[in-house]
Amino acid sequence: MQALIDRIRSEGKILPGNILKVDGFLNQMIDTALLDEMGREFARLFASDGVTKILTVEASGISIACAAAFNMGRIPAVFAKKHSTLNQDPDSYSARVFSYTHGTEYTIRVAKRFISPDDRILLIDDFLANGEALGGMLEIIRQAGAEAVGAGIAIEKGFQEGGERLRAQGLRIESLAIIESMDGNSVTFRS
Amino acid sequence: MQALIDRIRSEGKILPGNILKVDGFLNQMIDTALLDEMGREFARLFASDGVTKILTVEASGISIACAAAFNMGRIPAVFAKKHSTLNQDPDSYSARVFSYTHGTEYTIRVAKRFISPDDRILLIDDFLANGEALGGMLEIIRQAGAEAVGAGIAIEKGFQEGGERLRAQGLRIESLAIIESMDGNSVTFRS
Repeated sequence: MQALIDRIRSEGKILPGNILKVDGFLNQMIDTALLDEMGREFARLFASDGVTKILTVEASGISIACAAAFNMGRIPAVFAKKHSTLNQDPDSYSARVFSYTHGTEYTIRVAKRFISPDDRILLIDDFLANGEALGGMLEIIRQAGAEAVGAGIAIEKGFQEGGERLRAQGLRIESLAIIESMDGNSVTFRS
Repeated sequence: MQALIDRIRSEGKILPGNILKVDGFLNQMIDTALLDEMGREFARLFASDGVTKILTVEASGISIACAAAFNMGRIPAVFAKKHSTLNQDPDSYSARVFSYTHGTEYTIRVAKRFISPDDRILLIDDFLANGEALGGMLEIIRQAGAEAVGAGIAIEKGFQEGGERLRAQGLRIESLAIIESMDGNSVTFRS
Protein backbone atom coordinates (compact mmCIF):
# COMPACT_ATOMS: atom_id res chain seq x y z
CA MET A 1 0.00 0.00 0.00
CA GLN A 2 1.70 3.10 -1.28
CA ALA A 3 0.60 5.44 1.52
CA LEU A 4 2.14 3.14 4.13
CA ILE A 5 5.35 2.63 2.13
CA ASP A 6 5.72 6.40 1.69
CA ARG A 7 5.22 6.93 5.39
CA ILE A 8 7.80 4.31 6.35
CA ARG A 9 10.26 5.96 3.94
CA SER A 10 9.69 9.44 5.36
CA GLU A 11 9.24 8.70 9.07
CA GLY A 12 10.47 5.19 9.87
CA LYS A 13 13.60 5.02 12.02
CA ILE A 14 16.11 2.20 11.64
CA LEU A 15 17.74 1.05 14.87
CA PRO A 16 20.51 -1.52 15.39
CA GLY A 17 19.32 -5.13 15.22
CA ASN A 18 17.06 -4.66 12.20
CA ILE A 19 14.51 -2.80 14.29
CA LEU A 20 12.25 -0.45 12.33
CA LYS A 21 10.51 2.10 14.53
CA VAL A 22 7.20 3.36 13.21
CA ASP A 23 5.97 4.71 16.50
CA GLY A 24 5.20 8.13 15.04
CA PHE A 25 2.25 6.91 12.95
CA LEU A 26 1.54 3.24 13.74
CA ASN A 27 2.80 2.09 17.10
CA GLN A 28 2.69 4.69 19.85
CA MET A 29 1.15 7.63 17.99
CA ILE A 30 -1.46 6.39 15.54
CA ASP A 31 -2.39 8.28 12.38
CA THR A 32 -6.09 7.42 12.35
CA ALA A 33 -6.56 8.44 8.70
CA LEU A 34 -3.79 6.04 7.61
CA LEU A 35 -5.21 3.45 10.02
CA ASP A 36 -8.61 3.62 8.35
CA GLU A 37 -7.01 3.34 4.92
CA MET A 38 -5.18 0.21 6.05
CA GLY A 39 -8.41 -1.23 7.42
CA ARG A 40 -10.16 -0.60 4.11
CA GLU A 41 -7.32 -2.27 2.22
CA PHE A 42 -7.53 -5.41 4.36
CA ALA A 43 -11.31 -5.40 3.87
CA ARG A 44 -10.77 -5.25 0.09
CA LEU A 45 -8.13 -8.01 0.09
CA PHE A 46 -10.26 -10.43 2.14
CA ALA A 47 -13.67 -9.32 0.84
CA SER A 48 -14.68 -12.74 -0.50
CA ASP A 49 -13.42 -14.88 2.39
CA GLY A 50 -16.44 -14.77 4.67
CA VAL A 51 -14.40 -13.49 7.60
CA THR A 52 -16.44 -13.61 10.84
CA LYS A 53 -13.84 -12.35 13.30
CA ILE A 54 -10.44 -10.69 13.53
CA LEU A 55 -7.76 -11.96 15.90
CA THR A 56 -4.68 -10.00 16.93
CA VAL A 57 -2.24 -9.74 19.86
CA GLU A 58 -2.12 -6.78 22.24
CA ALA A 59 -1.07 -3.99 22.19
CA SER A 60 0.03 -2.60 18.85
CA GLY A 61 -2.17 -4.95 16.79
CA ILE A 62 -5.37 -3.67 18.39
CA SER A 63 -5.80 -0.46 16.43
CA ILE A 64 -5.23 -2.15 13.06
CA ALA A 65 -7.50 -5.06 13.98
CA CYS A 66 -10.32 -2.67 14.92
CA ALA A 67 -9.91 -0.67 11.69
CA ALA A 68 -10.03 -3.86 9.62
CA ALA A 69 -12.99 -5.29 11.55
CA PHE A 70 -14.93 -2.03 11.30
CA ASN A 71 -14.38 -1.90 7.53
CA MET A 72 -15.30 -5.58 7.07
CA GLY A 73 -18.90 -4.96 8.10
CA ARG A 74 -18.43 -4.19 11.80
CA ILE A 75 -17.36 -7.71 12.72
CA PRO A 76 -15.82 -8.32 16.17
CA ALA A 77 -12.10 -7.85 16.80
CA VAL A 78 -10.56 -10.12 19.44
CA PHE A 79 -7.17 -9.57 20.95
CA ALA A 80 -5.02 -12.21 22.61
CA LYS A 81 -3.59 -11.02 25.90
CA LYS A 82 0.13 -11.15 26.53
CA HIS A 83 0.08 -10.12 30.16
CA SER A 84 -1.62 -12.01 32.96
CA THR A 85 -4.34 -10.15 34.80
CA LEU A 86 -5.98 -11.01 38.11
CA ASN A 87 -9.41 -11.33 36.53
CA GLN A 88 -8.39 -13.31 33.47
CA ASP A 89 -10.70 -16.03 32.26
CA PRO A 90 -9.47 -19.42 33.48
CA ASP A 91 -11.15 -21.10 30.53
CA SER A 92 -8.79 -19.91 27.80
CA TYR A 93 -6.85 -21.12 24.80
CA SER A 94 -3.17 -20.33 25.09
CA ALA A 95 0.07 -20.60 23.15
CA ARG A 96 3.71 -19.87 23.90
CA VAL A 97 5.37 -17.24 21.73
CA PHE A 98 9.09 -16.49 21.56
CA SER A 99 9.95 -12.81 21.16
CA TYR A 100 13.19 -12.27 19.25
CA THR A 101 13.03 -8.56 20.08
CA HIS A 102 13.02 -9.20 23.81
CA GLY A 103 14.74 -12.57 23.94
CA THR A 104 12.00 -14.02 26.11
CA GLU A 105 9.03 -16.32 25.78
CA TYR A 106 5.52 -15.27 26.73
CA THR A 107 2.04 -16.78 26.71
CA ILE A 108 -0.83 -15.39 24.68
CA ARG A 109 -4.37 -16.17 25.82
CA VAL A 110 -7.89 -15.87 24.43
CA ALA A 111 -10.98 -16.79 26.45
CA LYS A 112 -12.57 -19.86 24.85
CA ARG A 113 -15.99 -18.25 24.51
CA PHE A 114 -14.61 -15.71 22.00
CA ILE A 115 -13.75 -18.26 19.29
CA SER A 116 -16.13 -20.92 18.07
CA PRO A 117 -15.51 -23.77 15.60
CA ASP A 118 -17.58 -22.05 12.90
CA ASP A 119 -15.49 -18.87 12.99
CA ARG A 120 -13.52 -17.87 9.90
CA ILE A 121 -10.73 -15.80 11.33
CA LEU A 122 -8.45 -13.19 9.81
CA LEU A 123 -5.23 -12.69 11.76
CA ILE A 124 -3.95 -9.13 11.93
CA ASP A 125 -0.64 -7.83 13.19
CA ASP A 126 1.52 -4.77 12.81
CA PHE A 127 4.77 -6.64 12.05
CA LEU A 128 5.72 -10.02 10.61
CA ALA A 129 9.36 -11.03 11.09
CA ASN A 130 9.99 -14.53 12.43
CA GLY A 131 6.29 -15.34 12.47
CA GLU A 132 6.19 -16.23 16.15
CA ALA A 133 3.08 -14.21 17.01
CA LEU A 134 1.20 -15.50 13.94
CA GLY A 135 2.26 -19.05 14.87
CA GLY A 136 0.83 -18.57 18.36
CA MET A 137 -2.45 -17.24 17.00
CA LEU A 138 -2.67 -20.16 14.54
CA GLU A 139 -2.18 -22.56 17.45
CA ILE A 140 -5.07 -20.90 19.33
CA ILE A 141 -7.31 -21.15 16.26
CA ARG A 142 -6.34 -24.84 15.92
CA GLN A 143 -7.28 -25.46 19.56
CA ALA A 144 -10.65 -23.78 18.97
CA GLY A 145 -11.29 -25.84 15.83
CA ALA A 146 -11.89 -22.64 13.85
CA GLU A 147 -10.47 -21.72 10.46
CA ALA A 148 -7.75 -19.17 9.71
CA VAL A 149 -8.58 -17.61 6.34
CA GLY A 150 -5.30 -15.69 6.25
CA ALA A 151 -3.20 -12.99 7.81
CA GLY A 152 -3.18 -9.25 7.16
CA ILE A 153 0.13 -7.65 8.12
CA ALA A 154 1.03 -3.98 8.06
CA ILE A 155 4.81 -4.37 7.67
CA GLU A 156 6.56 -7.62 6.76
CA LYS A 157 10.32 -7.94 7.14
CA GLY A 158 10.80 -10.00 3.99
CA PHE A 159 14.42 -10.71 4.86
CA GLN A 160 13.36 -12.68 7.94
CA GLU A 161 11.97 -16.14 7.50
CA GLY A 162 8.48 -15.99 9.05
CA GLY A 163 6.55 -15.01 5.93
CA GLU A 164 8.21 -17.60 3.70
CA ARG A 165 7.79 -20.41 6.25
CA LEU A 166 4.11 -19.69 6.97
CA ARG A 167 3.24 -19.25 3.28
CA ALA A 168 4.93 -22.62 2.62
CA GLN A 169 2.59 -24.09 5.23
CA GLY A 170 -0.36 -22.79 3.20
CA LEU A 171 -1.25 -19.61 5.07
CA ARG A 172 -2.35 -16.75 2.87
CA ILE A 173 -0.49 -13.63 3.99
CA GLU A 174 -1.22 -10.15 2.68
CA SER A 175 1.33 -7.58 3.77
CA LEU A 176 0.75 -3.91 3.03
CA ALA A 177 4.49 -3.24 2.89
CA ILE A 178 7.24 -5.86 2.50
CA ILE A 179 10.76 -4.77 3.33
CA GLU A 180 13.37 -6.47 1.18
CA SER A 181 16.34 -5.07 3.02
CA MET A 182 17.31 -2.42 5.53
CA ASP A 183 20.63 -0.83 6.23
CA GLY A 184 21.65 2.01 8.54
CA ASN A 185 19.74 4.71 6.71
CA SER A 186 17.49 3.28 4.00
CA VAL A 187 14.74 0.77 3.48
CA THR A 188 14.21 -1.15 0.22
CA PHE A 189 10.72 -2.49 -0.42
CA ARG A 190 9.73 -5.59 -2.39
CA SER A 191 7.80 -4.50 -5.45
CA MET B 1 -25.01 6.35 26.22
CA GLN B 2 -27.97 4.04 26.13
CA ALA B 3 -26.44 1.43 23.80
CA LEU B 4 -23.48 0.97 26.15
CA ILE B 5 -25.67 0.86 29.28
CA ASP B 6 -27.92 -1.76 27.65
CA ARG B 7 -24.90 -3.83 26.71
CA ILE B 8 -23.43 -3.70 30.22
CA ARG B 9 -26.84 -4.77 31.59
CA SER B 10 -27.14 -7.71 29.21
CA GLU B 11 -23.53 -8.92 28.99
CA GLY B 12 -21.46 -7.42 31.81
CA LYS B 13 -20.27 -9.89 34.42
CA ILE B 14 -19.82 -8.89 38.05
CA LEU B 15 -16.90 -10.53 39.84
CA PRO B 16 -15.89 -10.30 43.51
CA GLY B 17 -14.04 -7.09 44.40
CA ASN B 18 -16.32 -4.77 42.40
CA ILE B 19 -14.83 -5.96 39.13
CA LEU B 20 -17.09 -5.54 36.12
CA LYS B 21 -16.04 -7.67 33.18
CA VAL B 22 -17.00 -6.31 29.79
CA ASP B 23 -14.55 -8.42 27.82
CA GLY B 24 -17.25 -9.72 25.47
CA PHE B 25 -17.77 -6.35 23.75
CA LEU B 26 -15.21 -3.83 25.00
CA ASN B 27 -12.09 -5.37 26.45
CA GLN B 28 -10.95 -8.60 24.85
CA MET B 29 -13.57 -8.97 22.12
CA ILE B 30 -14.48 -5.58 20.70
CA ASP B 31 -17.85 -4.83 19.12
CA THR B 32 -16.63 -2.46 16.43
CA ALA B 33 -20.11 -1.05 15.72
CA LEU B 34 -20.53 -0.09 19.39
CA LEU B 35 -16.93 1.17 19.39
CA ASP B 36 -17.66 3.52 16.51
CA GLU B 37 -20.82 4.75 18.22
CA MET B 38 -18.79 5.51 21.35
CA GLY B 39 -16.20 7.34 19.26
CA ARG B 40 -18.93 9.46 17.64
CA GLU B 41 -20.40 10.28 21.04
CA PHE B 42 -17.04 11.50 22.38
CA ALA B 43 -16.61 13.55 19.19
CA ARG B 44 -20.02 15.16 19.80
CA LEU B 45 -19.31 15.86 23.49
CA PHE B 46 -15.93 17.52 22.81
CA ALA B 47 -16.78 19.02 19.41
CA SER B 48 -16.07 22.62 20.42
CA ASP B 49 -12.91 22.04 22.43
CA GLY B 50 -10.32 22.21 19.68
CA VAL B 51 -8.89 18.81 20.55
CA THR B 52 -5.62 18.17 18.68
CA LYS B 53 -4.71 14.75 20.09
CA ILE B 54 -6.09 11.85 22.09
CA LEU B 55 -4.06 10.25 24.89
CA THR B 56 -4.83 6.85 26.42
CA VAL B 57 -3.01 3.98 28.17
CA GLU B 58 -2.41 0.58 26.59
CA ALA B 59 -4.01 -1.85 26.04
CA SER B 60 -7.76 -1.63 26.44
CA GLY B 61 -7.90 2.14 25.93
CA ILE B 62 -6.41 1.92 22.43
CA SER B 63 -9.51 0.88 20.51
CA ILE B 64 -11.70 3.57 22.11
CA ALA B 65 -9.01 6.22 21.64
CA CYS B 66 -8.71 5.37 17.93
CA ALA B 67 -12.49 5.43 17.44
CA ALA B 68 -12.73 8.83 19.12
CA ALA B 69 -9.73 10.24 17.22
CA PHE B 70 -11.05 8.98 13.90
CA ASN B 71 -14.43 10.59 14.52
CA MET B 72 -12.88 13.88 15.70
CA GLY B 73 -11.47 14.62 12.25
CA ARG B 74 -8.78 11.91 12.01
CA ILE B 75 -6.60 13.44 14.70
CA PRO B 76 -3.72 11.33 16.11
CA ALA B 77 -4.25 8.90 19.00
CA VAL B 78 -1.28 8.41 21.33
CA PHE B 79 -1.04 5.62 23.83
CA ALA B 80 1.15 5.62 26.92
CA LYS B 81 3.06 2.37 27.31
CA LYS B 82 2.80 0.37 30.50
CA HIS B 83 5.41 -2.23 29.69
CA SER B 84 9.09 -1.54 29.05
CA THR B 85 10.40 -2.54 25.65
CA LEU B 86 13.99 -2.88 24.49
CA ASN B 87 13.59 -0.21 21.85
CA GLN B 88 11.69 2.33 23.94
CA ASP B 89 12.46 5.97 23.48
CA PRO B 90 14.83 7.16 26.22
CA ASP B 91 13.48 10.68 25.85
CA SER B 92 10.07 10.17 27.42
CA TYR B 93 7.64 11.66 29.87
CA SER B 94 6.67 9.20 32.58
CA ALA B 95 4.42 8.88 35.60
CA ARG B 96 3.86 6.25 38.26
CA VAL B 97 0.40 4.71 38.43
CA PHE B 98 -0.95 2.51 41.21
CA SER B 99 -3.22 -0.31 40.03
CA TYR B 100 -5.84 -1.24 42.63
CA THR B 101 -6.87 -4.22 40.51
CA HIS B 102 -3.38 -5.71 40.59
CA GLY B 103 -2.07 -4.20 43.82
CA THR B 104 1.09 -3.00 42.10
CA GLU B 105 2.58 0.20 40.80
CA TYR B 106 3.68 0.63 37.22
CA THR B 107 5.18 3.37 35.06
CA ILE B 108 3.45 4.82 32.01
CA ARG B 109 5.61 6.45 29.35
CA VAL B 110 5.07 8.63 26.29
CA ALA B 111 7.93 9.69 23.99
CA LYS B 112 8.39 13.45 24.35
CA ARG B 113 8.10 14.12 20.62
CA PHE B 114 4.46 12.95 20.63
CA ILE B 115 3.17 15.77 22.86
CA SER B 116 3.93 19.42 22.29
CA PRO B 117 3.03 22.43 24.46
CA ASP B 118 0.39 23.61 21.98
CA ASP B 119 -1.52 20.32 22.09
CA ARG B 120 -5.08 20.31 23.44
CA ILE B 121 -5.47 16.76 24.65
CA LEU B 122 -8.51 14.64 25.32
CA LEU B 123 -7.83 11.72 27.67
CA ILE B 124 -9.66 8.51 26.89
CA ASP B 125 -9.95 5.35 28.95
CA ASP B 126 -12.21 2.34 29.22
CA PHE B 127 -12.72 2.55 33.00
CA LEU B 128 -12.55 5.23 35.65
CA ALA B 129 -12.50 3.98 39.24
CA ASN B 130 -9.84 5.46 41.54
CA GLY B 131 -8.58 7.76 38.82
CA GLU B 132 -5.00 6.52 38.95
CA ALA B 133 -4.52 6.12 35.19
CA LEU B 134 -6.10 9.53 34.47
CA GLY B 135 -3.87 11.05 37.16
CA GLY B 136 -0.79 9.56 35.48
CA MET B 137 -1.83 10.90 32.08
CA LEU B 138 -2.50 14.36 33.57
CA GLU B 139 1.01 14.30 35.06
CA ILE B 140 2.48 13.51 31.62
CA ILE B 141 0.49 16.37 30.04
CA ARG B 142 1.72 18.69 32.80
CA GLN B 143 5.34 17.67 32.10
CA ALA B 144 4.80 18.40 28.41
CA GLY B 145 3.25 21.80 29.12
CA ALA B 146 0.19 20.85 27.06
CA GLU B 147 -3.45 21.29 28.01
CA ALA B 148 -5.93 18.58 29.03
CA VAL B 149 -9.35 19.62 27.73
CA GLY B 150 -11.08 16.76 29.52
CA ALA B 151 -11.51 13.03 29.79
CA GLY B 152 -13.82 10.70 27.91
CA ILE B 153 -14.53 7.50 29.82
CA ALA B 154 -16.53 4.51 28.68
CA ILE B 155 -17.53 3.20 32.12
CA GLU B 156 -17.17 5.14 35.37
CA LYS B 157 -17.54 3.39 38.70
CA GLY B 158 -19.37 6.27 40.37
CA PHE B 159 -19.11 4.59 43.77
CA GLN B 160 -15.32 4.90 43.72
CA GLU B 161 -13.72 8.22 44.36
CA GLY B 162 -11.69 8.97 41.21
CA GLY B 163 -14.36 10.82 39.25
CA GLU B 164 -15.42 13.04 42.16
CA ARG B 165 -11.83 13.90 43.10
CA LEU B 166 -10.72 14.76 39.56
CA ARG B 167 -13.86 16.79 38.83
CA ALA B 168 -13.22 18.72 42.06
CA GLN B 169 -9.76 19.50 40.66
CA GLY B 170 -11.43 21.04 37.62
CA LEU B 171 -11.14 18.23 35.08
CA ARG B 172 -14.14 17.88 32.79
CA ILE B 173 -15.07 14.19 32.67
CA GLU B 174 -17.67 12.76 30.32
CA SER B 175 -18.53 9.16 31.08
CA LEU B 176 -20.78 7.21 28.71
CA ALA B 177 -22.06 5.03 31.56
CA ILE B 178 -21.77 5.80 35.28
CA ILE B 179 -22.38 2.91 37.65
CA GLU B 180 -24.01 4.02 40.90
CA SER B 181 -23.79 0.65 42.58
CA MET B 182 -23.11 -3.02 41.86
CA ASP B 183 -24.02 -6.07 43.80
CA GLY B 184 -23.64 -9.77 43.05
CA ASN B 185 -26.02 -9.82 40.13
CA SER B 186 -27.15 -6.34 39.12
CA VAL B 187 -25.79 -2.96 38.14
CA THR B 188 -27.53 0.34 38.90
CA PHE B 189 -26.64 3.28 36.68
CA ARG B 190 -26.62 6.97 37.57
CA SER B 191 -29.32 8.72 35.54
